Formats: sequence, C-alpha cells, structure tokens
Amino acid sequence: MTYCVGMRLNRGLVLMSDTRTSAGVDNFSVSKKMFTWASPDEYAITIMTAGNLATTQAMISLLEERSKTAEKRDPSILRQPTMFQVARLVGETLKEVIAGSSPNGQTSDDQFRASVILAGQIAGGQPTVFLIYPEGNFIEITDDTPFFQIGETKYGKPILVRAYDADMTFDDAVKLLLVSFDSTIKSNLSVGMPFDVLVYENDAFDVGRQKRVEATDEVFQKISTGWSKALKDAFQELPRYSV
Amino acid sequence: MTYCVGMRLNRGLVLMSDTRTSAGVDNFSVSKKMFTWASPDEYAITIMTAGNLATTQAMISLLEERSKTAEKRDPSILRQPTMFQVARLVGETLKEVIAGSSPNGQTSDDQFRASVILAGQIAGGQPTVFLIYPEGNFIEITDDTPFFQIGETKYGKPILVRAYDADMTFDDAVKLLLVSFDSTIKSNLSVGMPFDVLVYENDAFDVGRQKRVEATDEVFQKISTGWSKALKDAFQELPRYSV
Repeated sequence: MTYCVGMRLNRGLVLMSDTRTSAGVDNFSVSKKMFTWASPDEYAITIMTAGNLATTQAMISLLEERSKTAEKRDPSILRQPTMFQVARLVGETLKEVIAGSSPNGQTSDDQFRASVILAGQIAGGQPTVFLIYPEGNFIEITDDTPFFQIGETKYGKPILVRAYDADMTFDDAVKLLLVSFDSTIKSNLSVGMPFDVLVYENDAFDVGRQKRVEATDEVFQKISTGWSKALKDAFQELPRYSV
Repeated sequence: MTYCVGMRLNRGLVLMSDTRTSAGVDNFSVSKKMFTWASPDEYAITIMTAGNLATTQAMISLLEERSKTAEKRDPSILRQPTMFQVARLVGETLKEVIAGSSPNGQTSDDQFRASVILAGQIAGGQPTVFLIYPEGNFIEITDDTPFFQIGETKYGKPILVRAYDADMTFDDAVKLLLVSFDSTIKSNLSVGMPFDVLVYENDAFDVGRQKRVEATDEVFQKISTGWSKALKDAFQELPRYSV
C-alpha cells in the first residue's frame, strides 16, 4: 500500500507521499514515489504513484525516456501545452504499461493496477492536480474537492476534511498532512516513513522546495505526540453523553 | 456497509452500532443491528451484525427460534455454560446460514458473508467480547486489543486508538464512540444514523441500559460540531513545519 496526497491551496500546491513499498509484510523497503520535472518560466510537474511498483517504475521510466529524447520520441510530457494534455499522456502511458503486463489485457481488478496523482503548472495555465486511474482516465481537482488521496486513504481523511482551509499557509498545510500521515502509519503497516513533501508556490515553476521527513525529525515527533495529547484534551472538553 | 464497535472497559462493556442497511446508494433503509438477550443473575448477551442482511437476519432468527424452544431444539445460546460456548454456537450458525445461501458452498469472498460481534456475560464468568468471522471461527478481546470493530472500520479507528483508556467512565466511552461514529458517517454514506448504544456494567446481567441516538439528538449535535472545532483548535497549537 501507499499513501499520497495532493492538495491545492489558494497560494499553491502541497504534495506528500510515503516511501514504503511492500510485497507482503515480510518484504518491504523504501522507494521514492514522488517524481519531479521543472524548467524556469516554463513548467513544474510532479507525479506521485500508488500501486504495483513494477507498473509505476515502468511508467516513470517511459515518461522520463520520452522526455529526454523529446525531439525524436514525442510525445513528451514536457512539451505539452497544458496540464490537461500532460494528464492525458500520463494516463495513456499508465494504461499501456498495465495492459502490457496483463496476460489477458487490462481488467479492473488487475494485480498490476496503479494510480497516479499528477500536480503542477505550465506557463499560461493555473496550478492544478489530477487523479489518474489505472484505466487511463482522470479527474481534476476543484474547489469542492480540494485534495486527492491515493493508496490507503481512509485513516487520514477525517482530519483533512475537518481542518482543510483554502487560505491556510504552506506551513499549516504541511502540518495538516503530517497529522494525516501520522494517523495512517499508526493504523496501516504498509504505509511508512520517511515522507517526501513538496511545496509549490503559484507561478514559481520550480520544484526545489522539497524535504524528506525522517522518523527522527524532531518537529514531526512533536507534532505526532502533541496531536495525541491535543486530541485527548479536546475530547475531554466535549459534553458528556449519558445512557 | 455498517459500523459496529464492541469495547471492554474495566467497569463493563460499551457497544454501539449504526442502523443503515443498503443494497446500493439508491436503496437504503434503517435496520437494527443490535440484538439482546438477558435473564437476571444468569446471562446478558448482545450480538451486533455486519454484512449481508439476509444472512444476519436468518442467523438471528435461527438463534431466536432455537432459544425459544430450548427444551426441544437444543443447542440454544441461552443454555451455554460460558461465553466461549456461545461464540462457538453463533459461529456455527453463521457458517451454516452462509453455506446454505451459496450455490457452491462457502467461499471466502462470498457475497453472502457477514461478521458478528458477540458481547456479554454468563454467571460464573467475566464479561467479554468476541469477533466472529464468516468462516465461523472467532477471536476474543484482550487487554492489548480492548475493542473490536466490524464493517467500515477505518475512518473511526484513529480516535479510538488514541483516546481509549480502560479506566474511562461509561459516559466518556459513549462519547468516544460517538466521535468515532461521527467521523465514519462523515466519510462513508453507507454508515448512517440513528445509532444504537448499550452500556453493560460488570455483573449486572441486564441489557436495559440502551439508547437510540437520533440525528436530532442535541448532545450528539454538540459533540459533532464541538469536535470539529476542538480539532481545529488543537491543530493550531501544534508546532509549525516549514519546508
């Protein structure tokens, strides 16, 4: 399993992914699930992946390869005019990889399935986020649905729903995601640290504001323990319910 | 889907179940999922069910029927010497019903599957809780795992893990379950109000302390809105995380 979130704020995008990959509880390791491409004043594109690791690695390699020899081997995700076109290309590549692995072509409950969060901005457009399904189709983020999750989405969702605010600062958004990820790793062994986080400010066309949050990170530890205590305190303040 | 929790405290048991049953989002209704039997100084038994409604209703009807004509039609769950024997009987009945509905006998991904939480006390034993699987086998609650969930278990788990305390009062435990259920109904349409709650004090051999919590319940509404606010306040107090 995996846990990745792509969130849109008024001031930009905040993305976070875990790094645990596993083929059973007795076979797990650390694998980066966040991939970035950027060119000043032109584009900043990030992809986060969940699902079969062979599928997602092949997809990323294909996208990489096609982008590096862009003149000869179009289509490249780095030469698209809009994020919508990038999403189409990523979706087609994902579908192609899955279909190539499946003996009978693609089926919906395929073991080779994977999902993708695509986030970024291309000059002339707004920053946006897409959730791309294994079938290659996708949905775009809206004000009503200001974040997408892939992988183990359930444990970490309630706090996102309650505390998200489009006007929040980047620091607050990262903190919110850390709380959401902390709740998830406490409940699902297949999601694990370290976390990769990326903050993208509108019109920056830069993916340099990245950080890897290790389990030993002091601020993260304070957030994790502080949140447990804060929840207990908040809980005490609620009215009693007698039966 | 469904959401039921059976929790053991030092002073007794607290059980809660939702009441929504659905065969698709366009076909849902209210159905009680909590069933009780008690006899002063002898036994107090509660069953909560999740899964295929035809299966769980048939199971409850069989258990009821066999308990009412106990002399002629043993085994009855009301004539067992221990909760362990009750769990065996419920498990066998559940397995029997599922196997009877399945064209090729029982399979693990069967559409007729159902799970059961069995809770209660029989004179001479301690109050306890069992989680019974569709295969008829079961596990018993321990101090390390002081609550069982069935149905849509993920959204409501983080708060249970963080705030549970074996010494807590019944009022606090009910409040905790209401918060857990509130988080769940906010994220999964197939879990819905009203909720049924039962509080069982050690050695009471009585199931009279029950209540149905309606959506219009004022204290519940205060807990629901208060929790959203409390979470936001608690969140603000955590340290910032700059990237």
